[in-house]
Amino acid sequence: MKKGELTRTAIIDAALDLSARVGLEGLTIGALAERMQMSKSGVFAHFGSREDLQIAVLNAYERRFVDDVLLPGLKANRGLPRLHMIMTRWLAHTAREAASGCLWISSAAEFDDRPGAVREALVGMVRAWRRELARAAQQAIEVGDLRAGAQATELVFELYGVVLALHHDTRLLRQPEASVLAQRAVGRLLTAYAVPARLRALQSNDRTQNTAETFLPS
Amino acid sequence: MKKGELTRTAIIDAALDLSARVGLEGLTIGALAERMQMSKSGVFAHFGSREDLQIAVLNAYERRFVDDVLLPGLKANRGLPRLHMIMTRWLAHTAREAASGCLWISSAAEFDDRPGAVREALVGMVRAWRRELARAAQQAIEVGDLRAGAQATELVFELYGVVLALHHDTRLLRQPEASVLAQRAVGRLLTAYAVPARLRALQSNDRTQNTAETFLPS
Repeated sequence: MKKGELTRTAIIDAALDLSARVGLEGLTIGALAERMQMSKSGVFAHFGSREDLQIAVLNAYERRFVDDVLLPGLKANRGLPRLHMIMTRWLAHTAREAASGCLWISSAAEFDDRPGAVREALVGMVRAWRRELARAAQQAIEVGDLRAGAQATELVFELYGVVLALHHDTRLLRQPEASVLAQRAVGRLLTAYAVPARLRALQSNDRTQNTAETFLPS
Repeated sequence: MKKGELTRTAIIDAALDLSARVGLEGLTIGALAERMQMSKSGVFAHFGSREDLQIAVLNAYERRFVDDVLLPGLKANRGLPRLHMIMTRWLAHTAREAASGCLWISSAAEFDDRPGAVREALVGMVRAWRRELARAAQQAIEVGDLRAGAQATELVFELYGVVLALHHDTRLLRQPEASVLAQRAVGRLLTAYAVPARLRALQSNDRTQNTAETFLPS
């Protein structure tokens, strides 16, 4: 990387860190410049506007999220194994982020009634993530892992709700047990939607591989 | 009511309306004074500080919420009928509020990492509401409407997640179908937790009373 790119990456890293604490709306060029020990115009040289900076931060968050949650899921076999892996990683990711919060979820509240480029970028990312989840659920229906009558959209809505509740309870109510409640809720959802024999196959496979983080009911 | 109380009530009404659009954090004495065509000091005379005003708004929101959601629920019989009525009212309330958002949910994101009196007031209210929900669920277990092994805390966590997903999807993603997805999700949760015969009794009773808003699967 050239020096300019290195600086830009360092600014975005600092901005991600800062917005995790003050929110995307609390992120100002001034605070960021102070943190980077740069001049405001120095920061401005890398981002045309505060909106561009906010969108760059959202993009950086998305890259990390995809690396941490989606890609490990895509390495698992299509169907229940993939759905299970995605949810395992997503819950772990959300629990780990408890101190700072998920940038998408906290930004949703900030930008849900604020039209503009940042809102559009955020909505695009959340929709893309929902599409990935729906694709994984639809594949699980097609390979016969989930019941034939199951609706991918309904399952995804319910899974999303569990993650929102986990985020809400750990952040606002400071309840560490929310993590276990969320794992059980996802386990119940997958159990309710799955073809029993396929679920048992996944469970015994999980035990063989000694996957300690599984949340499937045994 | 005396004139002072009337003015205070009018200020709180305006503040509720204003914070529904700009958030509790966006609520300033200045904006409120302008809206009420009063002086800032006139507004200040009724509230010692901006925090006091924010807490008064939260209290007013809670009163409306209790009137609209909890009290109609408490009029229904203990057990599944009450749980069902509470959820019916809560989903309707949340869908109706889609344009402005639920003050508790939007404030959760604003105050989850901001210590102070407003956060404490908010946490107290959300905890109180969760206790009411857990009580209704626990009663449903005790009267034999829900399966004996059911855990009230788990059901309440899952129901809360559905409402958070409804709020998220209608507000950020502008998806009107979220309302139907939420009704189905609650219907599935109650079905999964209920003793089948008790659920059927509630369903046929609902049909007799022609409760159009029911979301129980038929």
